[in-house]
Amino acid sequence: MGNLHETLGINDLKSKNTLWKALLAEFLANVLLNFFGCASCVSATGKPTSFVLIALTFGLVIFILVQTLGHVSGAHINPAVTAGMMSVGNISIVKGILYIIVQCLGSLAGSSVLKALTPEPLHSTGLGNTQLQDDFTPVQGFGVEFFLGFVLVLVVCGVCDPNRPEAKPAAALAIGMAVGVGHLATVDFTGSSMNPARSFGSALIANDWDDHWVYWVGPVLGGIAAALIYKHAFSAPSLGPLK
Amino acid sequence: MGNLHETLGINDLKSKNTLWKALLAEFLANVLLNFFGCASCVSATGKPTSFVLIALTFGLVIFILVQTLGHVSGAHINPAVTAGMMSVGNISIVKGILYIIVQCLGSLAGSSVLKALTPEPLHSTGLGNTQLQDDFTPVQGFGVEFFLGFVLVLVVCGVCDPNRPEAKPAAALAIGMAVGVGHLATVDFTGSSMNPARSFGSALIANDWDDHWVYWVGPVLGGIAAALIYKHAFSAPSLGPLK
Amino acid sequence: MGNLHETLGINDLKSKNTLWKALLAEFLANVLLNFFGCASCVSATGKPTSFVLIALTFGLVIFILVQTLGHVSGAHINPAVTAGMMSVGNISIVKGILYIIVQCLGSLAGSSVLKALTPEPLHSTGLGNTQLQDDFTPVQGFGVEFFLGFVLVLVVCGVCDPNRPEAKPAAALAIGMAVGVGHLATVDFTGSSMNPARSFGSALIANDWDDHWVYWVGPVLGGIAAALIYKHAFSAPSLGPLK
Amino acid sequence: MGNLHETLGINDLKSKNTLWKALLAEFLANVLLNFFGCASCVSATGKPTSFVLIALTFGLVIFILVQTLGHVSGAHINPAVTAGMMSVGNISIVKGILYIIVQCLGSLAGSSVLKALTPEPLHSTGLGNTQLQDDFTPVQGFGVEFFLGFVLVLVVCGVCDPNRPEAKPAAALAIGMAVGVGHLATVDFTGSSMNPARSFGSALIANDWDDHWVYWVGPVLGGIAAALIYKHAFSAPSLGPLK
Ligand SMILES: [Ca+2]
Ligand SMILES: [Ca+2]
Ligand SMILES: [Ca+2]
Ligand SMILES: [Ca+2]
Repeated sequence: MGNLHETLGINDLKSKNTLWKALLAEFLANVLLNFFGCASCVSATGKPTSFVLIALTFGLVIFILVQTLGHVSGAHINPAVTAGMMSVGNISIVKGILYIIVQCLGSLAGSSVLKALTPEPLHSTGLGNTQLQDDFTPVQGFGVEFFLGFVLVLVVCGVCDPNRPEAKPAAALAIGMAVGVGHLATVDFTGSSMNPARSFGSALIANDWDDHWVYWVGPVLGGIAAALIYKHAFSAPSLGPLK
Repeated sequence: MGNLHETLGINDLKSKNTLWKALLAEFLANVLLNFFGCASCVSATGKPTSFVLIALTFGLVIFILVQTLGHVSGAHINPAVTAGMMSVGNISIVKGILYIIVQCLGSLAGSSVLKALTPEPLHSTGLGNTQLQDDFTPVQGFGVEFFLGFVLVLVVCGVCDPNRPEAKPAAALAIGMAVGVGHLATVDFTGSSMNPARSFGSALIANDWDDHWVYWVGPVLGGIAAALIYKHAFSAPSLGPLK
Repeated sequence: MGNLHETLGINDLKSKNTLWKALLAEFLANVLLNFFGCASCVSATGKPTSFVLIALTFGLVIFILVQTLGHVSGAHINPAVTAGMMSVGNISIVKGILYIIVQCLGSLAGSSVLKALTPEPLHSTGLGNTQLQDDFTPVQGFGVEFFLGFVLVLVVCGVCDPNRPEAKPAAALAIGMAVGVGHLATVDFTGSSMNPARSFGSALIANDWDDHWVYWVGPVLGGIAAALIYKHAFSAPSLGPLK
Repeated sequence: MGNLHETLGINDLKSKNTLWKALLAEFLANVLLNFFGCASCVSATGKPTSFVLIALTFGLVIFILVQTLGHVSGAHINPAVTAGMMSVGNISIVKGILYIIVQCLGSLAGSSVLKALTPEPLHSTGLGNTQLQDDFTPVQGFGVEFFLGFVLVLVVCGVCDPNRPEAKPAAALAIGMAVGVGHLATVDFTGSSMNPARSFGSALIANDWDDHWVYWVGPVLGGIAAALIYKHAFSAPSLGPLK
């Protein structure tokens, strides 16, 4: 019984103080992700934004949030990351589900605030909603988003490996730049969501659910695949007990 | 009486040597911020500058200044940061006010030097003065600048938390990139000041004070909100006394 | 006999478990390099991609892969790096050849997946195949690629020098940015391969082998030259036995 | 007599082995600076290169060279840095002059190699030669270059301060990004040399010496001013004897 409770994480709920702080951190981080990330997609000048600008915004906002809030919640900020962590037992089932719920609520709040703080004529292009480029089939979109979730969670696992202290100083930067690389390479293919919560918030505000499943199934399965491969093939040997 | 003196920081004024160095560092940093930052907004080729160029300039100049001068003054370089630090008692009232004054004087000097070192035909676009994009109401501009001050001071608090040594190696980079993210996302909305002193220096040189209150009230309130939230919800548990 | 075995690395093959993990890491890293790197060269919007976007993608994907997988295989991800390491005895001959084979297979797989996940109309521009710009002679191309391999391996040697612990925190970032610099400066000259495996994967998918030797001989000779110069002129004095 | 010898650095010449390595490192670094930096200014596509591309190239090449060769020569790569270090006694007069000579020779070699490896039609725009934009007076150009040398050497002093170990992990990145900021902000004003050797190499290859004094006097005086200010106002208190 104790073991089952542990896997499900019901015991986690008892340390309420820490849990609420972690949920607040995830919520707030997703607010800022969708506010700043999607603001980069919204151009107020009449000219389209460059993809480099969008990619740097998403990559750097993840870098600064992980660097700032990593100690509170682990700074997942993304259901694909949380799913990957759940698949290898780094976070309990119950806590992981709570994380995913507040991530979605945070992204929704961030997109809502963006809508409120921008003039209505700017809303017509979807406020950063992720969509498949013409000619891409949903299966191709799924494949692209699978790889996006895969590379992100592979990096998260590698730089957060407790037996790799040498990877710590630039860990948050690497996680952010995994998001940056994904956007640079594939923002023109699928909008490079990499993150179901981020797409959920945008989709609800834009009320556009075309191919929305792609942005959930792709990153989540990619993230789980990466976490399992990292754990079984690449995790660093134990450094022994730390002082 | 001693306690009040401490909060107000009147005792600070006694260690004059350190204080003058700190004020000189803040002054010089704001000179360089406005000189290089606003120089990035001034195009000498006749074509408008890309937003990526402007955002990288502001973000990277803050990174290098914090990395270089952090030990002298804390490298606030921004009244919104100073206000945030004052709100949680990290800097005394008197010292904070002195910081804000020299920050404004530094930014003014930086913008003045930029004006002197560029040909007159380039001055017509305002030398980097921050302005609300058409269609944005002052309240929307306030909201955007609130979020800009919020994210910057949240990052400052997180990476400078004395109980988070793991955040130190990339701390200055994260602070700079918070400024970079803000510019990337919202330079087309409000000019993304994030910093009342930077806007003050530009506004005085351009003699254009439209909506100037937005650039003071927004970042300062956002910065205070972030400092209070970080202190009460996210600060790391004490590591115990350091050797 | 023992010494010859050591140089050739036949003994390496006995620790099969570690070797297979390293080969898997090299394979997977090259899959991700060619998938994301070449995806950045493929534009789905009808407009050509900016060189800054391409350069940041290649540079950042190498940064995150080295940061994530460095402990498994050394994260060469590039036959020029492996050749440089072989030339100074940092990796045995047999192991180095196995590395190069799986790097090529990985890049081929990455380019294949990219082809499968993008609509056919986007394949006409070569899916990121490296080619000499008109007017460049093959000898000029060789020279450019020589310098590209040279700077990359010089950085690898410098930041991975076991007697330079101060270089470790930003080591992976420097390696990635060496790739970034190479692309920024010379992507318009040769496509800035820097990496025979990356070019091999693209060339096979595009079935375009014009001047392909340039992308093998240039980076490999440049890499070997840099490794020899670093070893004999620049390697740091021994720090003495580490605890 | 001993003291004079020390200031002039004549004793340095006795440790010939270390000196030659340092001179080789400075030479090679300036070769790579001018080769890659100026290659970024040369566009082989017929369209002008973006300033972001040029600025990132110069900034990142300095970052990787400092990260790679800092232990050999201090990685000045720039007479303005060497002059700044000489003015505060961090390098002897004789050694500093030798540094400056090999820096100039290295930059000349780098620009020469670039000329040899590019088709002749690309040489007409000057191969990256730094020039004042129309309408800028030489005095304005001097002022801009003074600030460029100032910010660079201020950062070098701050991050290399022996009593600031916390600044080390990102030191080379900050130095590189000081170069990046300078280019982003002022490449359209003066070409943002920041570096007399880099301009000397380009000017000799292009045989264009207009306003060349600006690129020597500006950065050198700016660098000396920054070094003196840092030493007397900002240097960190001693950490005491290190073990
Ligand atoms: Ca925007
Ligand atoms: Ca400019
Ligand atoms: Ca693409
Ligand atoms: Ca070029």
